[in-house]
Amino acid sequence: MEKVISYLENNWNIFLERLKEFLSIPSISTLPEFKEEVRKTALWLGDIFKRLEFSRVEFVETRGYPILFAEYSPPNPELTILIYGHYDVQPVDPESEWISKPFEPEIRGDCIYARGASDMKSQILAQIFVTEAWLANESLPIRLKYIIEGEEEVGSPNIRDFLENNKDLLFADFALNCDAGIHSPDIPSITYGLRGLAYFELELKGPKKDLHSGLYGGTIRNPIHVLCELIAKMHDDKGKVTLPGFYDKVTSLTSEEKELLAQVPFSEDEWKNITGVTELYGEEGFNTLERVGIRPTLDVNGIVGGFTGKGAKTVLPSEARAKISMRLVPNQDPSDVEVSFRNFLESNCPKEISWRLALHSSAPPAVMNLHSVYMKSAEKALEREFGRKPVFKREGGSVPVVAWIKEILKMDTVMLGFSLPDDGIHGPNEHQNLSVLKRGTKVYAYFYQELLKNLGK
Amino acid sequence: MEKVISYLENNWNIFLERLKEFLSIPSISTLPEFKEEVRKTALWLGDIFKRLEFSRVEFVETRGYPILFAEYSPPNPELTILIYGHYDVQPVDPESEWISKPFEPEIRGDCIYARGASDMKSQILAQIFVTEAWLANESLPIRLKYIIEGEEEVGSPNIRDFLENNKDLLFADFALNCDAGIHSPDIPSITYGLRGLAYFELELKGPKKDLHSGLYGGTIRNPIHVLCELIAKMHDDKGKVTLPGFYDKVTSLTSEEKELLAQVPFSEDEWKNITGVTELYGEEGFNTLERVGIRPTLDVNGIVGGFTGKGAKTVLPSEARAKISMRLVPNQDPSDVEVSFRNFLESNCPKEISWRLALHSSAPPAVMNLHSVYMKSAEKALEREFGRKPVFKREGGSVPVVAWIKEILKMDTVMLGFSLPDDGIHGPNEHQNLSVLKRGTKVYAYFYQELLKNLGK
Repeated sequence: MEKVISYLENNWNIFLERLKEFLSIPSISTLPEFKEEVRKTALWLGDIFKRLEFSRVEFVETRGYPILFAEYSPPNPELTILIYGHYDVQPVDPESEWISKPFEPEIRGDCIYARGASDMKSQILAQIFVTEAWLANESLPIRLKYIIEGEEEVGSPNIRDFLENNKDLLFADFALNCDAGIHSPDIPSITYGLRGLAYFELELKGPKKDLHSGLYGGTIRNPIHVLCELIAKMHDDKGKVTLPGFYDKVTSLTSEEKELLAQVPFSEDEWKNITGVTELYGEEGFNTLERVGIRPTLDVNGIVGGFTGKGAKTVLPSEARAKISMRLVPNQDPSDVEVSFRNFLESNCPKEISWRLALHSSAPPAVMNLHSVYMKSAEKALEREFGRKPVFKREGGSVPVVAWIKEILKMDTVMLGFSLPDDGIHGPNEHQNLSVLKRGTKVYAYFYQELLKNLGK
Repeated sequence: MEKVISYLENNWNIFLERLKEFLSIPSISTLPEFKEEVRKTALWLGDIFKRLEFSRVEFVETRGYPILFAEYSPPNPELTILIYGHYDVQPVDPESEWISKPFEPEIRGDCIYARGASDMKSQILAQIFVTEAWLANESLPIRLKYIIEGEEEVGSPNIRDFLENNKDLLFADFALNCDAGIHSPDIPSITYGLRGLAYFELELKGPKKDLHSGLYGGTIRNPIHVLCELIAKMHDDKGKVTLPGFYDKVTSLTSEEKELLAQVPFSEDEWKNITGVTELYGEEGFNTLERVGIRPTLDVNGIVGGFTGKGAKTVLPSEARAKISMRLVPNQDPSDVEVSFRNFLESNCPKEISWRLALHSSAPPAVMNLHSVYMKSAEKALEREFGRKPVFKREGGSVPVVAWIKEILKMDTVMLGFSLPDDGIHGPNEHQNLSVLKRGTKVYAYFYQELLKNLGK
């Protein structure tokens, strides 16, 4: 084991160079103009596994981007792990707010800045680096099956089919999902719950074309007004979502979960500091950790309509659009939520305005097993490196594949990754703390050891 | 007079070629990238006057685009007219909805399609064409002072100063404003009232940067939500604007005006047809003509915030913006309205969100003298060509210079132009009906004659 740790230390700079290369490829899956770059990223990552002499390295084509499947198969494996990651990233806008360019990684202070630095190129590359360290120094009687997709940031539209069609290939004892983070640099944590997602685009249409607001304003419905009225109605004055039946299936916490939640350190000031707001706000009757972890929410992610350029244009627009997403908790179901949303629109959209609703992506919520030997091994690995037990959290984000792996492959997941809450993922100046990432490589290394130990090998 | 009319007939095709040339120059005043083209348009128009051997043709520089001043000064003028026009046009977006390109004028059927075709390159060029016809065929004892600006579509920010600084130069008996239209191809009309304008940009700021909506959504105010709530609150459920004191100074119609308004032909079906909506909508207690002509309104002209590209991005945005304009009627004042808007925001914007309000442009409302000899001459000129008396209308649009000419030069305006309500001005596929324009040239020709006749010359 010491040799593994030394290897990680001694090759850290090589790893950093490799990470910079990975971060330089703009693998933005949601924008078609980056198509070639996204594919290039998969190939680049495949080469890493080929250099590690994995027995299988395959690119499984989908209707979208290929899923990289890579397998390490030792003679007498004691255990099989399915390791999940994604190689795609979010768009970079507003690009003007980036200090260094999003695809020219730059180390400033203790962090590396680039789109995908924290979500999740650093995480998956670090985990692969640890596998490399083991293989170079120790016998590793664990079969590893990596699946690294290129469409996580667009809601993983093709991985469900991939799981369905490859049940045997993907069979394992549990899944390790590296698309995760810890609470703070000194407080390790394990995410055992994820919210689901239902992401919609709502389009309203009023007049058949853009009109002059002086000549027609005040005589017909303005679709921007109606869109705003609808959005305003989606919450009541207690911060609750008003879609009919939205909370019907929401479950309460178990008493064990309540205890765990109470142990999660939380500072309102720090939350304000990270977000830069003067006051927090949310659903009445719940605190911030509850609002983000165990309560469903609705957010407008984008809105556009009419003239949005510089200056003034007196237009009464024909259309207005919004991207509206809900984060779901057990046992909410994305398709129930869609029905509820459609009912809301039926009841509330004035008849003069036509509407169209499209579901962009969806994911069920997931809660993981707190008591498995895999979870215990992760807990121990974190404790060894950080000198304290991790806290257990339910996260606000969504990783749809966790629920699908459970549903289709009947496997539980352990989330283990090293992003931090203030890494700026999905926004400008995304970064990864490199000290934390370095500690993370040791945790990944101990995790293999703890698994083997706990399984009695 | 017959020779003038024959000249208009015989040179119509030459005029059309000239109009196409004028329409081909993209003089979009609101977009800085068209700066050179806007200036080129002024020069192009100046050359027309130079060819007509006007005694003065000058480009008066402003902080923005130059104002073209051109003067025809006969030996013993019986009358002086200040003729107003503008050579700038609106932006073309959404460009994808144009059938032919906005700056490649195309005649289809009876109309010419191009940005600026109706608003107002056809109008001003036709009026100049008529002056040319008179000068070539008859003695014209009228001094003409043209002022043609390049910033009408951005709210004429510099013409006020120009009027203030050139009172003597601009002295005239009345102003003819060609930025106008008639009711329908067979029903002539004169606009004697214009709404004012107060055009704002409202910017809301929440978190200091874009955040992940899964990790932070539901714990802080989303500026898009707040913007929508504010916009929704700007009208009550009777379609009335809720800004405090908004209606305080609004006057009622005189009994003469009520009679005139009752004579304006109006078809609800036609209005629906032009706008393409299934139902009309507006302030309770008023009909459509009243809503657009005599009542103040508020419209959101544009809104933008968060991710608006293709696909899905789960962002909790830092900012949201809207362009919001009010059309004002006598005796509302744009600066009162600004105070009212700021009070509304003070009272209604939650403290977690900061706001900034900027006034883009403003114009006072204007009502013109119905009984002047100039108005009577315009009435007669229309009647001669169309075979019926014009109706008198108060329009929903704003032509700020009308109020400023009244205020600064103490001169009344006559609006006389030949655009039609369904010409699609400010929107895609803007067009001018050429039969109507041709009739319009005759009206402009008769107008000179009627003025001279009515003044007893």
